[in-house]
Amino acid sequence: MTMTKERIRIGILGASGYTGAELIRLLACHPQADIQVIAGERTAGQPLADVLPHLAMVDVPPLVKIEQVDYASLDAVFCALPHATTQAVVSAMPSSVKVFDISADFRLDNMDTYAEWYGGAHKAPALQNDAVYGLTEFYREQIKTKRIIACPGCYPTTSLLPLVPLLEAGAIDKDRIIIDAKSGVSGAGRAEKQANLFSEVSEAVHAYGVGRHRHMPEIEQELAKAAGQDITITFTPHLIPMNRGILATIYVKLADGQSVDSAYEVLARRYEQEEFVSVLPVGQTPATRHVRGSNYAMIGLAPDRVPGHMIIVAVTDNLVKGASGQAVQNFNVAFGFPEVTGLTQKPLFP
Amino acid sequence: MTMTKERIRIGILGASGYTGAELIRLLACHPQADIQVIAGERTAGQPLADVLPHLAMVDVPPLVKIEQVDYASLDAVFCALPHATTQAVVSAMPSSVKVFDISADFRLDNMDTYAEWYGGAHKAPALQNDAVYGLTEFYREQIKTKRIIACPGCYPTTSLLPLVPLLEAGAIDKDRIIIDAKSGVSGAGRAEKQANLFSEVSEAVHAYGVGRHRHMPEIEQELAKAAGQDITITFTPHLIPMNRGILATIYVKLADGQSVDSAYEVLARRYEQEEFVSVLPVGQTPATRHVRGSNYAMIGLAPDRVPGHMIIVAVTDNLVKGASGQAVQNFNVAFGFPEVTGLTQKPLFP
Amino acid sequence: MTMTKERIRIGILGASGYTGAELIRLLACHPQADIQVIAGERTAGQPLADVLPHLAMVDVPPLVKIEQVDYASLDAVFCALPHATTQAVVSAMPSSVKVFDISADFRLDNMDTYAEWYGGAHKAPALQNDAVYGLTEFYREQIKTKRIIACPGCYPTTSLLPLVPLLEAGAIDKDRIIIDAKSGVSGAGRAEKQANLFSEVSEAVHAYGVGRHRHMPEIEQELAKAAGQDITITFTPHLIPMNRGILATIYVKLADGQSVDSAYEVLARRYEQEEFVSVLPVGQTPATRHVRGSNYAMIGLAPDRVPGHMIIVAVTDNLVKGASGQAVQNFNVAFGFPEVTGLTQKPLFP
Amino acid sequence: MTMTKERIRIGILGASGYTGAELIRLLACHPQADIQVIAGERTAGQPLADVLPHLAMVDVPPLVKIEQVDYASLDAVFCALPHATTQAVVSAMPSSVKVFDISADFRLDNMDTYAEWYGGAHKAPALQNDAVYGLTEFYREQIKTKRIIACPGCYPTTSLLPLVPLLEAGAIDKDRIIIDAKSGVSGAGRAEKQANLFSEVSEAVHAYGVGRHRHMPEIEQELAKAAGQDITITFTPHLIPMNRGILATIYVKLADGQSVDSAYEVLARRYEQEEFVSVLPVGQTPATRHVRGSNYAMIGLAPDRVPGHMIIVAVTDNLVKGASGQAVQNFNVAFGFPEVTGLTQKPLFP
Repeated sequence: MTMTKERIRIGILGASGYTGAELIRLLACHPQADIQVIAGERTAGQPLADVLPHLAMVDVPPLVKIEQVDYASLDAVFCALPHATTQAVVSAMPSSVKVFDISADFRLDNMDTYAEWYGGAHKAPALQNDAVYGLTEFYREQIKTKRIIACPGCYPTTSLLPLVPLLEAGAIDKDRIIIDAKSGVSGAGRAEKQANLFSEVSEAVHAYGVGRHRHMPEIEQELAKAAGQDITITFTPHLIPMNRGILATIYVKLADGQSVDSAYEVLARRYEQEEFVSVLPVGQTPATRHVRGSNYAMIGLAPDRVPGHMIIVAVTDNLVKGASGQAVQNFNVAFGFPEVTGLTQKPLFP
Repeated sequence: MTMTKERIRIGILGASGYTGAELIRLLACHPQADIQVIAGERTAGQPLADVLPHLAMVDVPPLVKIEQVDYASLDAVFCALPHATTQAVVSAMPSSVKVFDISADFRLDNMDTYAEWYGGAHKAPALQNDAVYGLTEFYREQIKTKRIIACPGCYPTTSLLPLVPLLEAGAIDKDRIIIDAKSGVSGAGRAEKQANLFSEVSEAVHAYGVGRHRHMPEIEQELAKAAGQDITITFTPHLIPMNRGILATIYVKLADGQSVDSAYEVLARRYEQEEFVSVLPVGQTPATRHVRGSNYAMIGLAPDRVPGHMIIVAVTDNLVKGASGQAVQNFNVAFGFPEVTGLTQKPLFP
Repeated sequence: MTMTKERIRIGILGASGYTGAELIRLLACHPQADIQVIAGERTAGQPLADVLPHLAMVDVPPLVKIEQVDYASLDAVFCALPHATTQAVVSAMPSSVKVFDISADFRLDNMDTYAEWYGGAHKAPALQNDAVYGLTEFYREQIKTKRIIACPGCYPTTSLLPLVPLLEAGAIDKDRIIIDAKSGVSGAGRAEKQANLFSEVSEAVHAYGVGRHRHMPEIEQELAKAAGQDITITFTPHLIPMNRGILATIYVKLADGQSVDSAYEVLARRYEQEEFVSVLPVGQTPATRHVRGSNYAMIGLAPDRVPGHMIIVAVTDNLVKGASGQAVQNFNVAFGFPEVTGLTQKPLFP
Repeated sequence: MTMTKERIRIGILGASGYTGAELIRLLACHPQADIQVIAGERTAGQPLADVLPHLAMVDVPPLVKIEQVDYASLDAVFCALPHATTQAVVSAMPSSVKVFDISADFRLDNMDTYAEWYGGAHKAPALQNDAVYGLTEFYREQIKTKRIIACPGCYPTTSLLPLVPLLEAGAIDKDRIIIDAKSGVSGAGRAEKQANLFSEVSEAVHAYGVGRHRHMPEIEQELAKAAGQDITITFTPHLIPMNRGILATIYVKLADGQSVDSAYEVLARRYEQEEFVSVLPVGQTPATRHVRGSNYAMIGLAPDRVPGHMIIVAVTDNLVKGASGQAVQNFNVAFGFPEVTGLTQKPLFP
């Protein structure tokens, strides 16, 4: 991939959902991004202002159907399509196009695991060789060279940022890692489901997918690489009556000889050069409102009352660092732009 | 305490806060309750309609100061006062008055523990002998005879209902019990704190009191009784942008030879005669919206992916079963009324 | 309709939506109600606990299809079906069954108006003669005798309660009545629509149906009766990010010689014997939280700064007094029970 | 004021409230802004990360007390202080400092009106001559030359943008203008008031200041200038359970010979060159979520059912175009920067 200061010609597939909308929001302020085409199956033919009125001021052509997209005229395509539908779409693209995929289609190395969790055999397993897991802070070199950037899910991003360095450093035990995660509703997408109606979700909290959420294998795959051995985690997601945000409360056992302070040192050192990941002083823990609307992640550590154990709290905005923002960050890495380009907006509070 | 069908003369102290309001809401529909006096320090002199307009239709006299209450004319007093202020107030009451206390003042058997967590020595330690921990389903006999019913906090109620029978039955391990709890904002009370402003709380989630919440010792005290040995738990509360509700996600290790099914049997049997506690089929977990506004608790169990472990999800309404509703339930036990009297309202959804 | 203390055999059609759920919630605590059958098209065959887990403790048989209902065994049927579907269903019932309909199907006297606003000709116009508009406080006598009680919509109920007595008394001008209404999301029902997803509604407000909402003709019909002449109103509904509640802010011109105080007298006198309608002192206005979950309506009046004009604020819970609660109130009237039976629950705050 | 590409040295007073925080959020991304000092009375001495954790990544010195600010080293000061406190503070500044005030202190030309609505005589009436009402789209020339820019309130901004051009063009009647406004809670500020607690506001709506809100005289002052005569409006604000956003539903009578289409033409022409104000096609009305977090205003017009009348719906984000964003826009005008500098962020949805 050549470095360039020219504007990159971009297509966005699945532009009328929440992650698609978020890509447009971010790329509309990116000086090197030139959104040439936006596509949506059910919204094809409509101007963006009708589908996403909050982006009425963004100058893009009306939505088209995915099969109408002329990939030859594009440098980069962002895919914000439902899981299991991206494979066929990417297969049809010329290899000149760099793909930033927000679905799960290219995140799993193991095709059997994919088939087990996503309801059927992968339709383009060969393409997996062209893909890299797009957790930016850990895969920059491959993001520059691979054609498909499989951007991580929101739960994995929020969980892996604290856990990978701690496992790599041997600071925590490899078993009995418990991730209790709380997510805003936008993570469920814009599809019409009774479970996501305002009156079902508002003024309430519940766990879902207890013991069997699809993001588990992705988390375990990356933790295993960090730990050098298989890892089985406990992971419970909860739905919170808020639009955006993921908070992961993670319960771990410190490795022998380790302390919360030494764990803090591991993370502080690992992230001191990273713009988008901050580690709070020991004993402070972050809130989702501290990163709302931004690409930042915040991590806090606190001692558990049970000696030898530690509690980690990590937050991201599920639609930004947990999806579209990280995709843009990877786009910057891939095309040689400063990594923060288009991502310098500060969090929105209140 | 004599059984009677006469109406019980009741005073409510701290009537202008959320638990006080909830007591009035419930007792106003209780056929044997006669609210004779309501007291509030800052609201004394005002009619209830000014302080709590939603209760304008309840026929009670205006609020008075606590020191104006004539206890001799009352049979029962409900205390909804701030922690550490109830001791002195109860000391001044004649022993003929039955006290239903929603504060933490009489919940802890150990006065040193009290002093450690509540900022100073207990002012009426002798009264502790007259008190019983008011978790109704476990202390009915003593609730009938003791003078002071120390109604449990919302977090303890929600946590103890599933854990106590499992520990008593030896179904789960006694160490490494992790309670990750999510609470609505009303649990923080009606006092004017920046942290509880709408704009601070809405559209966000955060953990608080990580590793050091005041409800811990109360939970550990009761778990220790059930387990027959000291118990140290991990407990992390989170603030959720909703008015009401507590959801506790509890991570436990099954005891040798036990399974999720056998644990289910323990709970199902324990609660089959209980009106207010229901145990869901294995694999189903409850939401806080399923108990909103009601005195019901719901418990669900699911297998953890990590073999030999189990995930428990329990919910209550923090202002009802977690506070004022349980106080009314105890009132019914104490005065010999059917336990469901005044508590038959179904949950409010949506 | 004979007065009876026997339990009334009840069917609820459309039991899995929000107004259906609310009917079950209320009738489950009604000492004379015997829910014998509940029906739902898409949920037939399921136990209530699966469809509405918050009502798991209510003892009713599983849902059936509407065509499976044996009306001959029922005394009363509550219809909580979509607009335009009730006509055919009621046509098929024996005349021995008393019908409490929450849809708009029998609210409009004029069949042309019905056809204009509800998308087609009425399918059972003859039945309209058997129907009465079920605004309890104004149609008690006919509710006792008519077979079909067409319970008003939430917007009409909230608007008519203050306006009808003022028009009847000649206290306000008949033209330029502006109703700016704010509604919770449950009023939109439980159907799967993108517009009602949590993330679309939360943290936002918008007007809808500006100048053309279906509840307008119903309001105008009843205002015309009160005024003795045709009335054309301005009505703008807004969607508010809350589950329940309607607040109508109504702008009117006082009639010559009238004042806010004299208007207050009209309303205060009109409602002094009514359990469920309260009129606040002049200058005070109610909030929706003051009636949440209850059958109460509250009305407040304040002088407009523009001389000779007045601002009215009225609130109800759209699912209770604005739908299912009023249906139960009408049921009480129709069967000769005390009107408050099953409706004495106080509002739920917070 | 000279045009310059140098960075402007800025102080922000009242930095720990919501409008102060919003100023920092926006100015941190403004290439010509150099925040040199931030001040807060109760938070002086603390780093910004402790007071506003979402802005921890912004590089500014810790907060100081207002009296510690050295104005001689500053080019511009943004005041986000409580009403009635800014006058004395500005009086103490050297005349070399350009002031962007978000309070109401310099908005009213008439000092008697000020005294009537803000509880006492103005303390620096002479400074009023140095001030201009900072509704950017209407006062650009004076914003360049005057020393004090009195940025409008959120309700006035949202109301004046549609009404001023319509009155100037004679498109609508001058009397019986009714503004029914709905506001998010952040408009009430960050002070600790019971009325703004989450549990008081959530899941509810109410009107406040009925007939007597402080923003009225400011609206009337500007409408009178546009109309060439005194104007008395009806204005009712409502509190909505959302953090941000103002929606004003405005009821007007069209002038003789005017139509909704001709009114649309007036607004469309007036704003076609304006970046931050957009006028929707007739019949479409905007939602607050369409402008959340941005400096945009959107206006929609629809015919009232009552012939000759029109309904206007206008939205802004109360903290951006309604406060801090407009202050930055004025800063750009005053210092000769492109008006959109630092304000190009698109709205945040969901």
